[in-house]
Amino acid sequence: MTTDKRSRVLIIGAGFGGLNAAQSLVNKKVDVTLIDRHNYHIFTPLLYQVATASLDPSEIAYPIRATTHNWPNVDFAMGETVAIDPTSKQLDIRVDDQIHKLAYDYLILACGSTTHFFDMPEVATYSQGIKDLSEAVKLRNHILKQIERAVWNKDHEYRQASVTIVVVGGGPTGIETAGALYELSQQILSEFTRTDERIKLKVILVEAGDCLLKPYTPRLQGSAKEQLESLGVEVVLNDPLVEASKEHVSLKSGREIKTKTLIWAAGVKGSPLGELLSVPLVRNGQVPVLPTTEAIGLQDVYVVGDMAYLQDDNGESYPMLIQVAKQQGHLAAENILRRESGTSQKTFKYNDRGSMATIGRNRAVAWIYNRVPLTGFLAWFSWIFLHLIWLFGFRNRLNVLINWIWYYFAQDRAVRLIFEPEKLIDEKVQHSQ
Amino acid sequence: MTTDKRSRVLIIGAGFGGLNAAQSLVNKKVDVTLIDRHNYHIFTPLLYQVATASLDPSEIAYPIRATTHNWPNVDFAMGETVAIDPTSKQLDIRVDDQIHKLAYDYLILACGSTTHFFDMPEVATYSQGIKDLSEAVKLRNHILKQIERAVWNKDHEYRQASVTIVVVGGGPTGIETAGALYELSQQILSEFTRTDERIKLKVILVEAGDCLLKPYTPRLQGSAKEQLESLGVEVVLNDPLVEASKEHVSLKSGREIKTKTLIWAAGVKGSPLGELLSVPLVRNGQVPVLPTTEAIGLQDVYVVGDMAYLQDDNGESYPMLIQVAKQQGHLAAENILRRESGTSQKTFKYNDRGSMATIGRNRAVAWIYNRVPLTGFLAWFSWIFLHLIWLFGFRNRLNVLINWIWYYFAQDRAVRLIFEPEKLIDEKVQHSQ
Repeated sequence: MTTDKRSRVLIIGAGFGGLNAAQSLVNKKVDVTLIDRHNYHIFTPLLYQVATASLDPSEIAYPIRATTHNWPNVDFAMGETVAIDPTSKQLDIRVDDQIHKLAYDYLILACGSTTHFFDMPEVATYSQGIKDLSEAVKLRNHILKQIERAVWNKDHEYRQASVTIVVVGGGPTGIETAGALYELSQQILSEFTRTDERIKLKVILVEAGDCLLKPYTPRLQGSAKEQLESLGVEVVLNDPLVEASKEHVSLKSGREIKTKTLIWAAGVKGSPLGELLSVPLVRNGQVPVLPTTEAIGLQDVYVVGDMAYLQDDNGESYPMLIQVAKQQGHLAAENILRRESGTSQKTFKYNDRGSMATIGRNRAVAWIYNRVPLTGFLAWFSWIFLHLIWLFGFRNRLNVLINWIWYYFAQDRAVRLIFEPEKLIDEKVQHSQ
Repeated sequence: MTTDKRSRVLIIGAGFGGLNAAQSLVNKKVDVTLIDRHNYHIFTPLLYQVATASLDPSEIAYPIRATTHNWPNVDFAMGETVAIDPTSKQLDIRVDDQIHKLAYDYLILACGSTTHFFDMPEVATYSQGIKDLSEAVKLRNHILKQIERAVWNKDHEYRQASVTIVVVGGGPTGIETAGALYELSQQILSEFTRTDERIKLKVILVEAGDCLLKPYTPRLQGSAKEQLESLGVEVVLNDPLVEASKEHVSLKSGREIKTKTLIWAAGVKGSPLGELLSVPLVRNGQVPVLPTTEAIGLQDVYVVGDMAYLQDDNGESYPMLIQVAKQQGHLAAENILRRESGTSQKTFKYNDRGSMATIGRNRAVAWIYNRVPLTGFLAWFSWIFLHLIWLFGFRNRLNVLINWIWYYFAQDRAVRLIFEPEKLIDEKVQHSQ
C-alpha cells in the first residue's frame, strides 16, 4: 500500500467563484481550504434590498461552514490574506493580531471586486457604495436617518435635500436601487405625514452615457427607462457627475442638485488583493489570466470572477457577473484536477444565460439567454422565481419569501431599523469616560 | 366654538413603559410626542437569543413609527435627550449636530436601565453585557470570532480559553444565556471537527449568592440548577467574581478560570438620563417616585419602569421587570388624564403575573402568578407560546416561529454571522488611506 501525498488547494474568497471552485473539488483527491475575511457568503444580487430596508443582512448571508462541513475534503478558515508569495507558494493570513502561514500546491484567487471611484476623491468621500453587506447596511441607516432628521427641521431646503437621493450609474444595480428606493418612500413616508409639510422622497438616477443597461437591446433599454419614470424616478442621461460634496452634486450640464445622499453604482474594480501578486494589473485592478484562468506570469495561481481579466472572442473582457465567476471557478477547479491526473487543461467558454433587473413592484426587464426579451410583470415574476431558487439556504429562502409577500400586500417594512452596533458601543464608551 | 389648548405630553423612551404610556393616551385630549434614541422598540426578553445567534436583531426589534402612525394624537421623534429643565419645562434633544428644544406640560421618563458593574472598572472593561441590541450583537460577534480563532491555534491552553465562557449572575438573564450558549455549541461546533483537536465549548455560570433565581421557590431554584447541569453547564454558587482581565477571571475562593469571554448579567442600574433631573437618586441610579409615579421633588414629571424607585408594601423596591414598567407606564398616563379632568390620582398596585426562564431546548422554569410552579417541557412550551404572543408585529412573530421550528428540528443556526458593519467601514477607510 502506498500513500500518495494529496495536493493542497487554497481558495481565497467565498463568493460565487470561490464557493463554486470548492464545490467542484468535493470528494476529489485534493485537500481544500477555503479562506474568507467573513464567516458568511453573500447573495450579492439582493444587496440593494438590504440597502433599501426590504431584507435583513442575515437573509442574504449564509454561514460558510454550514455548507463546507458537508464537504469531507474542504475546510474553512476565517482570516484576512495579507501576503501572497508565489515563489515559496505560501500565504500570510492575519487572524486577530497574529499572522499564520499557509502553504499551497495550487491557489485560486476569487476575491471579487470593490467600488471604483475612478479619480474622484470627493466622490469616494461623500458617496456610498452597495458592493458589500457593510456598505448596504450603512446606506440603509443613512437613508432612514436623513428622513428622521428632516422631521425636526423647519427649513424647506434642508428638508428637501434630506429626502433627495441621487443614484449614479444606469446599470442593473443603479436601476434596481432607484426603483426600490422609490417603493421604500411610498411605503414608509406615509408615517411622517403629521409634520407641517408632507415629506416626499425624490430619486434621481444619473447616467453618463446615452442609455440605461448598456449591454441590453434598445427596446429593453427604453422599457427600463419608461418603467422607472412610471414609478416616479427621474432618469437623467448623457450628463455625468462632475462634483460632489456633503450637501450637493453637480452634473456636467451645470445642473446642481442639493442632496445628502449620493449612491455610487457607476463603477467597480478588481479586489485590492490582486496587488499582492507581483504581476502587472490592468487598469481597473484586474489580474490578466490565460484562457485556463491561470494568472499570466505566475505558476499554479488561478484567478477567477471579477478579479480576472480575460478577453472574449470579440476582444472584450468578460463582464463582472455571477455567471462568469461561477463558471470560471468551476473551470479553475477542473483544470487543477486535470493537471493532477496529467491531462491537458481546458479553456474558458462562457455560457451566457442572460440577465435581468427588477424595477420595484411588478416591473422588471429581462433578457433570457440574450435572446428572449421580457418586460413588466412577466419579467418581474421570473426575477422573483429565479432569485428564490438561487438564494442559498432553505431558511433564508423561506424568510425572504415571507418578507416579499408581506411587503407586497401589507406595504410595510419591518426591517427599517437604524442599527449601528459598533457606533453605539463607541458612543457608550465615550459617555462613560 | 371655543378651542381648548391641549396639553403636551412628552415621553422619553420607547421601551415597554414608554410605549404603554403612549398607548394609554391614544385618542385622549392630549398631544403626545414619543422620543427615543433609536427608531425601534426592542423585545428585551429575547436579547439573549440575539447574543447566542438564534435570532436576528430585526426579529426582536420593531419600528416605532409602524405603531405610532396608527395613533392620531401620538407623534414620534428620533433624537437623544441631553438636558431636562423641570423649571421652564423644556427638553434639549440632540439630532445629528443640532440641539432642538421641546416644551412639555407633562413629562414621562421611561428610559430603562443599563448594565451595572458596581465598583469594578476591570469588569466594565473586560466583560460584555446583554442589556441592549448593540451589546447583544457585539457579544454574538465576539463568541463566534473566538471559536473561529481557536481553529487556527495549536496551543491547547489558548484554544480552551477561546471556547470557555463565564456567565456571571444567576438571575433569569444569566440562566437563559448560559443555557442558550450550551445549545449553540452543541449545534455549530460539530462543524469544527476537522481540526486536530475537537473543540468543546465550556460554559460556567457564576453566582455570588447561594441559589439561582433568588425570588423563586426553593424547588424551582433547585430545578433550574439541575436542568442547567443536565445540559452540561457548570453552576458555581457562593463564589463571587473578584478579578477580571482580557484572559482570565478569578473567584473569591481562589479559583482562576482562563477565558476570553466574560458575560456580565449580575447587575443593572437606572438609565443615566436620571442624572439630568436635579434630584437625589438612590444608589443604583433610580429616581425616587411617589406611589403616583411622580418624581419626588419635581412638578409634572413622571418616572416609570426600571428608572423608578418605589417601595412595595414590604418596603422592598419593585423589581426591574417588564410587567412593572408596563403597569407604571399605564398608571402615569392615567394620572395625567385624571389631573387634566380634575380628578385625584391613583397609586401603584402591582399585578404580579409571575415570571419564567427558559434553559435551552425543552427545559425551563416558570412561576405563574407566583403560585403555580412549572418545570421542564411544560414550562418551556408555555414560555415559547407566551413569548410569541407578546412579540410585536406579525412578520416578526412568523419569522421567529420559523427560526425556532427550524432550529428545533434541523439544529442549524442561520444567523451566526460575524457582522460588524461600522468596524468594517472603518477598516476600509484606513486601508484606502
